[in-house]
Amino acid sequence: MKKVSYIDNIAQWRSEFSFSIPVKIRFSETDMFGHVNNVSAFIYFEEARIEFLKAAGMFGNQDSDAAMPIVADLQCDYQQQIYFDDNIKLYVKLNHIGNTSLDVHYMALNEKGELCLTGRGRMVYIHPETGKPVPLSDSIKERLMAVK
Amino acid sequence: MKKVSYIDNIAQWRSEFSFSIPVKIRFSETDMFGHVNNVSAFIYFEEARIEFLKAAGMFGNQDSDAAMPIVADLQCDYQQQIYFDDNIKLYVKLNHIGNTSLDVHYMALNEKGELCLTGRGRMVYIHPETGKPVPLSDSIKERLMAVK
Amino acid sequence: MKKVSYIDNIAQWRSEFSFSIPVKIRFSETDMFGHVNNVSAFIYFEEARIEFLKAAGMFGNQDSDAAMPIVADLQCDYQQQIYFDDNIKLYVKLNHIGNTSLDVHYMALNEKGELCLTGRGRMVYIHPETGKPVPLSDSIKERLMAVK
Amino acid sequence: MKKVSYIDNIAQWRSEFSFSIPVKIRFSETDMFGHVNNVSAFIYFEEARIEFLKAAGMFGNQDSDAAMPIVADLQCDYQQQIYFDDNIKLYVKLNHIGNTSLDVHYMALNEKGELCLTGRGRMVYIHPETGKPVPLSDSIKERLMAVK
Repeated sequence: MKKVSYIDNIAQWRSEFSFSIPVKIRFSETDMFGHVNNVSAFIYFEEARIEFLKAAGMFGNQDSDAAMPIVADLQCDYQQQIYFDDNIKLYVKLNHIGNTSLDVHYMALNEKGELCLTGRGRMVYIHPETGKPVPLSDSIKERLMAVK
Repeated sequence: MKKVSYIDNIAQWRSEFSFSIPVKIRFSETDMFGHVNNVSAFIYFEEARIEFLKAAGMFGNQDSDAAMPIVADLQCDYQQQIYFDDNIKLYVKLNHIGNTSLDVHYMALNEKGELCLTGRGRMVYIHPETGKPVPLSDSIKERLMAVK
Repeated sequence: MKKVSYIDNIAQWRSEFSFSIPVKIRFSETDMFGHVNNVSAFIYFEEARIEFLKAAGMFGNQDSDAAMPIVADLQCDYQQQIYFDDNIKLYVKLNHIGNTSLDVHYMALNEKGELCLTGRGRMVYIHPETGKPVPLSDSIKERLMAVK
Repeated sequence: MKKVSYIDNIAQWRSEFSFSIPVKIRFSETDMFGHVNNVSAFIYFEEARIEFLKAAGMFGNQDSDAAMPIVADLQCDYQQQIYFDDNIKLYVKLNHIGNTSLDVHYMALNEKGELCLTGRGRMVYIHPETGKPVPLSDSIKERLMAVK
C-alpha cells in the first residue's frame, strides 16, 4: 500500500472500521480504460457516508435544531484497480469529532479483502438557512460514536 | 440508418432541425467497451432539452402560473458509436404541441455530419403543487414554435 | 397508468415478469427537483439488463463465436416519481427473440408495489470485429427463455 | 476561504494558474439539495486534467514508450456552492514534477471570479502492461511545463 498522510499504521487503521455497506460496481461506472472510473469512488463514498449518518439518525431525520452535515472536503487514494462486477465493501468510521464538524475515514475492500480505496473527508454541521456552523449536541456525538 | 417509428422521411426530418448545442464527450461518460455509455445519450438529451426550453423562456423563468414541463417519456436510437473526445451537435425540435404537452425530437451529429443518435420524448406541462396538467398558453406556444 | 405503445394489457404484461434485481437509489442520482433524475432510470435498466444477460450466460462469458449483444434502442415511460432512499425492484423480461436480436422489457416497482417505470429496448447480437449481426444459436435462445 | 494543506498563500497560488477550460453545469449534476452534487467536482477535475495532458501531448497521443499517466490520488475542497446553469472556469496547473509522477492543482472560479473549488492530485506515469512507474522524459517534462 502506498503511504497516505491520514494513515499512520495501516493495520491499526484498518482494524478500527466496523460499519460497512456492500457496493456492486455498475457497468456505467467503468470507463474506456477498462476499470472503474476515478469519479465513481466518490459516488461510493457518498453512499456509504449517508448510510453512516442515517445509522446515527443524522440524515433525513434531523433533530429539532434542523442543522445538517455538509461536505467540506473529500480525498481518495486509489490503492488498486476495481473492475466491473466486483463486489466491494465500503467501510466508514469516525476519525475525529469536533465542536461543529466531523472527520470521516473511508476504506474499500474487494472480495479478496484487498485494499482498493482509502479516503477521508470533513463534514461541517451547519444551519441550512444561515449557512453558519452549529455545535454538535452531546446526544448526536454519542449516536455518531455508537455507529457500528 | 435504421428504421425508427418516429421518423418517416429521414432527409425531411433532419432538415427540420435548427436549434442545437455543442456537446463535448467526457472521459467519465465512456465505458469499458471503449465508447460512450448508452446512459450518457440521455444526459446530452437533457442538456439540449433544457437549453431549448430556456430559449422559449420556459425554464427557471416560469410564467406567473408557475407550471413547469416534466418529462413523461424518453427514447433513443443508437445509430452510430460515439467516442471520447468527439464533438457532437445535439439538435432539438418541437415535433408536436398539444393542449398540455409537447413532443420533442432529438438528433446528434458527429463532426463528419453523420447521424449518431436519434430520439424523442414527451413533456407534460404540470402544476408543481397539484401535479395536474395545465394548458399551455398561446404565448408559450408561440415562443416554443419560434425557437431556432 | 398512462398508455404506452408496447403494453396492451397492463395486468398481463406485469404478470409475465419474474426476473428482477433490487436497486437502492443513491443520493447522487437525484436532482434539484428533489427526486430521481430522468437519466438515472437508464442506469438502472442497464444494471438489470446485464444481470439478465449474465443469468443467460451472455455477458462476460461469451460463447466461442465471441459475438456480443449491443443496445440498439432504449425507451422509458416515467409512471411515478422515485425518491432518494427508495428501494425499487427492477424487472426484466424477454418480449421477443428474433434471428439476430432480442426485444427486452423493463418494469420498476416501488416498495408499495406501484409502477414507477416501464420501458423496453432492442439488443442486436453482433460480431465485435465486423460489427455485423450474428444469428443467436438455439442454445442461447433456450438459455434466454429460461431466465427466471 | 478556508485553510487547505496544499495552499500556503492563496493570492500567489491563484496567480500561478493560466490553463483553464469552461465548464457548464448540467442539470443531471445537481442533487436534491438544490446545488451541484459533491461527486460532480471530480467529473470537472477529470475533464480539465485530460485537456491539460492533451495540451502537453500526453493523452491519446502517447510517446513511443507507450507509458500513460494514471491517477494516484485526488482531493477537493468545497469553497462555495455551485448551482445549475453556472458557467465555471476550471484551472489546472503543474505544482510539482518528479521522476515518475506529477502533482497537479485545480481551481474552479464562478462567473464573479469567486473561488468555488480547490483541489489537487498526483498522477503516476506507468507502463500499461507491467503497471510499473516509468521515468518522465525531459521532452515530456518540458511540454508539461510549457502548457499555458
